[in-house]
Amino acid sequence: MIDDSDEGLTPERIAGYAQLAMLLELSASPKPGNVDRCHDHPDIRFGHFLASAVLAYPVFRRAGIGGAGIGELILEAITSWRCWGLPGNTHFGEILLLIPLAIASSRPGSLEKEVRSVLAGSTVQDAIDFYRAFALSGARVSQVGELSLNDSSSEDRIIRENRTLLDLMKLSQGHDLIAREWSNGMSRSFKLAGRLRELVPLHGINDGIVLGFLEALAEEPDSLVAAKFGQLRAGEVSAMARSALEGDDPLDIAGAMDRRLLADDINPGSTADITAAALFIALSSGLRF
Amino acid sequence: MIDDSDEGLTPERIAGYAQLAMLLELSASPKPGNVDRCHDHPDIRFGHFLASAVLAYPVFRRAGIGGAGIGELILEAITSWRCWGLPGNTHFGEILLLIPLAIASSRPGSLEKEVRSVLAGSTVQDAIDFYRAFALSGARVSQVGELSLNDSSSEDRIIRENRTLLDLMKLSQGHDLIAREWSNGMSRSFKLAGRLRELVPLHGINDGIVLGFLEALAEEPDSLVAAKFGQLRAGEVSAMARSALEGDDPLDIAGAMDRRLLADDINPGSTADITAAALFIALSSGLRF
Repeated sequence: MIDDSDEGLTPERIAGYAQLAMLLELSASPKPGNVDRCHDHPDIRFGHFLASAVLAYPVFRRAGIGGAGIGELILEAITSWRCWGLPGNTHFGEILLLIPLAIASSRPGSLEKEVRSVLAGSTVQDAIDFYRAFALSGARVSQVGELSLNDSSSEDRIIRENRTLLDLMKLSQGHDLIAREWSNGMSRSFKLAGRLRELVPLHGINDGIVLGFLEALAEEPDSLVAAKFGQLRAGEVSAMARSALEGDDPLDIAGAMDRRLLADDINPGSTADITAAALFIALSSGLRF
Repeated sequence: MIDDSDEGLTPERIAGYAQLAMLLELSASPKPGNVDRCHDHPDIRFGHFLASAVLAYPVFRRAGIGGAGIGELILEAITSWRCWGLPGNTHFGEILLLIPLAIASSRPGSLEKEVRSVLAGSTVQDAIDFYRAFALSGARVSQVGELSLNDSSSEDRIIRENRTLLDLMKLSQGHDLIAREWSNGMSRSFKLAGRLRELVPLHGINDGIVLGFLEALAEEPDSLVAAKFGQLRAGEVSAMARSALEGDDPLDIAGAMDRRLLADDINPGSTADITAAALFIALSSGLRF
């Protein structure tokens, strides 16, 4: 991360941007409903998320070196979390987006073009490794494809049907924001990165991220909220974000919204994942604060 | 950090422990007078400290590989912070302790013995690189030796007098806690690590760190506070920490103490640096949370 030349990103810089994206997203406050620097979740505390981001660095570095499969890297991250004694779902959604972005950043072309090519190049082995990682993670079912995770024949079926990881994501794009990002070349992440490049210089890094998160939440219902509480509730949360943005002091209203969502255990986690992906894109294209 | 075997620490694990020590120390709250997860400093914000910890990872990794000089690594860390546009003093005191600990962790013997040997092996070149890093950092003069930093002849004098970095630290041990840690084989850091191993399982990671910090502050006046406000004031701050620990709810009293110190711009930063070193020692010897 020392060299800011145009000769492409080193694995260290790629890993640094990915890790910093996780830490900045984690810390931005008040980020309604999610763990942030002033809130612990009862089961997963702030320190657990810090450890999870630390353990992700060597995985991102390997992604930035190139040559390792997406599924293999996802499995490596989850395994390192579990071996440390962390829950496997601390940053599961984020690494699903950040690992392909890190691989793409090591290539010479534009990030937008390269990430499409990385996603299109995913293999059947990536799909198998992803399933293994998912089973190990304990993440919510909403975050994956439609093949049953409790069904040990899923792996055979993936092989028999010759499904790549991108194929699986396309099966889930109707009900899962992360799967949709995979299916459409991460279009919302790139769009939000553009907004962060405008918001952060105006409002500072913390408030810029909170405002970007609110805009993304206002735009589309969060699929983790929908999976836990239904589409209607997810729509209401997006409406709350919209009215916060229309208010005189969106940050203040976000604080009140945060308390309300926390009381109801509603966390718009998929929108936070997209925020981290957008931060990576913005940082790697020069955003400073 | 995946492998927990006894075959010695890999550079990745060493870097992970050092970085996590920085992030946990940074985040522990309320840590009276210092930036923490719920407080920004007006000039250096929480996000700047996160970026600083991210940029330190590759430096710690190089330390864990072995072969690089302490001074060279210190200079590398400060340079990477400055190139990113960060203030150079975000974590200056912490890396002065964490880099020798990281180098020592890559060696086969006990950490306590190896770190003494690393410090004793510091060279004249380390002293020169340290001076260059210091000049680049903008850190307070209290944190170094007695040779003038504004005097360009200091470098010549170091060479002429054949002073190693440990020699310089010994010159400052009377008035600087970090220099004293260097001079005595980091004895307070090891002692505090022992307390953290007792406090964290009882109180959780956040509160365990806050209590350990208060104990260290109660035990000895902070030298950064003394440099800015005099010994008398530093002694008063230690007395406040003692009475917090003697109260019914030390964490609650720490919150009030925090607000008072922040109002007076008093930050016991050297005690925070020793807390980070103690966290590294505890994590690398198996502390989990």
